[in-house]
Amino acid sequence: MTPMEIALEEARAAARRDEVPIGAAVTDSNGRVLARDGNRVEALRDPSAHAEMLALRAAALAVGDKHLAGATLWVTLEPCAMCAQAASLFRVARVVFGAYDPKGGGTEHGARVFRHPQCNHAPEVVGGVRESEAGALLRDFFAGLR
Amino acid sequence: MTPMEIALEEARAAARRDEVPIGAAVTDSNGRVLARDGNRVEALRDPSAHAEMLALRAAALAVGDKHLAGATLWVTLEPCAMCAQAASLFRVARVVFGAYDPKGGGTEHGARVFRHPQCNHAPEVVGGVRESEAGALLRDFFAGLR
Repeated sequence: MTPMEIALEEARAAARRDEVPIGAAVTDSNGRVLARDGNRVEALRDPSAHAEMLALRAAALAVGDKHLAGATLWVTLEPCAMCAQAASLFRVARVVFGAYDPKGGGTEHGARVFRHPQCNHAPEVVGGVRESEAGALLRDFFAGLR
Repeated sequence: MTPMEIALEEARAAARRDEVPIGAAVTDSNGRVLARDGNRVEALRDPSAHAEMLALRAAALAVGDKHLAGATLWVTLEPCAMCAQAASLFRVARVVFGAYDPKGGGTEHGARVFRHPQCNHAPEVVGGVRESEAGALLRDFFAGLR
């Protein structure tokens, strides 16, 4: 299973918990999975419990280092400004995301967190990986709520 | 003690723990203190353990609601993009900060998180409150490290 498939699996697991279906995984420079998690905003009653935040924190605990040098954050949706800045603070080398998020995204839209001189560690960004599946999960979820 | 004095007290406590001295408090619409905390990045080995994130999460737990309607986040330094977006996600009404942070700030500098249409809840921002004390704490801390 590729890391993005793991992230998609976490997104589907989130949907089954009635959470907005977003999933994430963190891999080290050898591609080993350090952590994986899905959105837990409702379960934890914590609006900051995005999949990326949980996976980044778990990955740092797993490696025993607050900096994730060489790591990649995989996430099914373009990160918001909070998660983008967190990826920078945890010093991941790369952020790979699925669907673009023109409404809430913070790397390619809006705050464009990595594109300012204030961002002293800007991970490489790759968007659109397994985009259609990631987007379909979200669309199906919100269609089901209507 | 005003909420900013509480935040400054938390910043001084952080310095005593050898953390970058930044402190925060969250008050409800009546000015009651819901939560207070300082930076714990080193203690928790978690680069996302900024004073604001810890105080916002604790405040939400304290009120039993993930949204802090009418609340104010008080913090000794201009929030970074992560903490700014978190303040938006927790729906605080207002962010009051001490020192401006041209290097790492994310509300008045760089990402300017609240100033994009992607930000669907933009708290009111008041900067420069007890600015000199908040800035002096940081300067003294970094001078001591040299």
